Amino acid sequence: MSDKVLLDYGSGGKASQRLIGELFLKNFDNPELRRMNDGAVLSLPGKIAVSTDTFTVDPIFFPGGDIGRLSVHGTVNDVAMMGAVPRYLTCGFLIEEGLPMELLTSVVESLGAAAREAGVWVVTGDTKVVPKGAADKLFINTTGIGEVIVDPAPAGDRATAGDAILISGTLGDHGLAILSTRQGLAFETPVLSDCASLNHAIEALLRGLPDVHVLRDPTRGGLATTLNEIAIASNVTCEIVEDLIPVRPEVRGGCSLLGLDPLYLANEGKFICIVPEAQAEAALTIMRADPLCTGATRIGTVMAPEKAGQTGRVVLKTGLGGKRLLGMLEGEQLPRIC
Amino acid sequence: MSDKVLLDYGSGGKASQRLIGELFLKNFDNPELRRMNDGAVLSLPGKIAVSTDTFTVDPIFFPGGDIGRLSVHGTVNDVAMMGAVPRYLTCGFLIEEGLPMELLTSVVESLGAAAREAGVWVVTGDTKVVPKGAADKLFINTTGIGEVIVDPAPAGDRATAGDAILISGTLGDHGLAILSTRQGLAFETPVLSDCASLNHAIEALLRGLPDVHVLRDPTRGGLATTLNEIAIASNVTCEIVEDLIPVRPEVRGGCSLLGLDPLYLANEGKFICIVPEAQAEAALTIMRADPLCTGATRIGTVMAPEKAGQTGRVVLKTGLGGKRLLGMLEGEQLPRIC
Repeated sequence: MSDKVLLDYGSGGKASQRLIGELFLKNFDNPELRRMNDGAVLSLPGKIAVSTDTFTVDPIFFPGGDIGRLSVHGTVNDVAMMGAVPRYLTCGFLIEEGLPMELLTSVVESLGAAAREAGVWVVTGDTKVVPKGAADKLFINTTGIGEVIVDPAPAGDRATAGDAILISGTLGDHGLAILSTRQGLAFETPVLSDCASLNHAIEALLRGLPDVHVLRDPTRGGLATTLNEIAIASNVTCEIVEDLIPVRPEVRGGCSLLGLDPLYLANEGKFICIVPEAQAEAALTIMRADPLCTGATRIGTVMAPEKAGQTGRVVLKTGLGGKRLLGMLEGEQLPRIC
Repeated sequence: MSDKVLLDYGSGGKASQRLIGELFLKNFDNPELRRMNDGAVLSLPGKIAVSTDTFTVDPIFFPGGDIGRLSVHGTVNDVAMMGAVPRYLTCGFLIEEGLPMELLTSVVESLGAAAREAGVWVVTGDTKVVPKGAADKLFINTTGIGEVIVDPAPAGDRATAGDAILISGTLGDHGLAILSTRQGLAFETPVLSDCASLNHAIEALLRGLPDVHVLRDPTRGGLATTLNEIAIASNVTCEIVEDLIPVRPEVRGGCSLLGLDPLYLANEGKFICIVPEAQAEAALTIMRADPLCTGATRIGTVMAPEKAGQTGRVVLKTGLGGKRLLGMLEGEQLPRIC
């Protein structure tokens, strides 16, 4: 094959077949993909959870990950958050003509490795190559399908007054890693993206503690935006305590420098877990047993709305004892973060 | 909302919520989407068929369709070809900053209408906005999920010596419609894309005739490439007769003018159907009863390989009585056709 991606690699003809055989099949190999149909036939018992995401992250390789890994982690996590065990991924590559084959190969290898780690199969895909200038290097869409293992499943509208709000670890790492790379900033302690597939941790939690009310990963818009979505859907007040929110010192430092708020920065390997108060300790114990969630901690409590008819809101208890309303992200802190 | 798509419409924050509420929910409304989770929970009995496609067609609006309709038709058809009734779609929008909202609105309306016609629900989605210049206007990924209704399902490797090769209508319409628009050519009789969802026709066929061996839609690479894929997968020779292959006179004329072969042009509303000889007439009768397949006709026969160990091939019997080997598409006739 050429050392650059050519237009006809996406033509559906001979060159496409070669790309599929030599690159995709080799890295994603599994019995369903090997059948080489235009799609996949799958068997899943009971309810299925489905989620889709298009990944546009810039740069393609960043400290702690790359667009290939992120395309697995992001979608696997969204499926897991629905109370499901992710099983399958579809994968749509949109490639700019002239992309070095070496770069594409690295991304595909990385995607394949991340899928194996997460225990999901890439069962079908699509490749489009657009003329130079029509896309910036590489975009990847993944759609994930999983098996729902709890009923009722955790959902954004199930937060209940009295529930404990837990977070699986430090906030802001992914956002700051991308931003500092893009701006060419070097911190004394390098900030790595936290991007990771959380499905094994989530499965342990769901099997150990079947009444988890809400699971959500605070990606774009960060903790503050995701908690607002939950508060609105559940019509509750989420009260979180500033001093309890884990943020690495280097992320805190980078945020001060750049004028960013870590509560609004994207995370790609963390989750919010809302459970009945009585189960908070048990949930934290299960979470901390997973290597990706050793920093799991409680950050707040779900409250009833203060007034009748009030819409859901997020309140931050500051270090000085004051209370501050945290809105959703306004504007765009950082395009192409995922 | 602004009259142009802004970066923060893809931020995951307030503006994203507004876009989802005012545009996507309005046009795709269904109970699952309304739950506004990061994904969908679906129930499907038995085996499911899954297919994914990223649509990059240029221009976005073309004679006979647009990228919104195409994003439904393309994926619905791929799912149907697997012996399934398509039920659900996911939808990932990748938008260039500054795209006129009016254009995005038209595409979304069109996608919503096509989904309703096909009887599928858009159950979850994702929107990314990339800075101006990082993508050319708009790309859409759809992943389709359907319920497999026959067992064994039709598949590319099930063509058997003696089977009849049928086509649901004229070839080359989509490819020529796109190309002539792009080149600013006007024919006396305008050539329209054939883009359409074939799932209702396919369902009637599968329910009426449960032993369909192969169903495939000859999109990129056209009839010749798709038949080659089938011939290779089934290890057979597909013999087709030039004089039996339906091509509109205006497509034939346009192809001569532009030096193109209609057998290699993309179709977006046609399917190849391979059935046992004894069922050929019954299949054609069912197909012709569907308004999209009134021109269904037999174009050839599946043969055993001529020599032992020969790989699958496609042979064209020409009007003059000769035989010509039809290879897969080499190179790229036309980028961004779908």
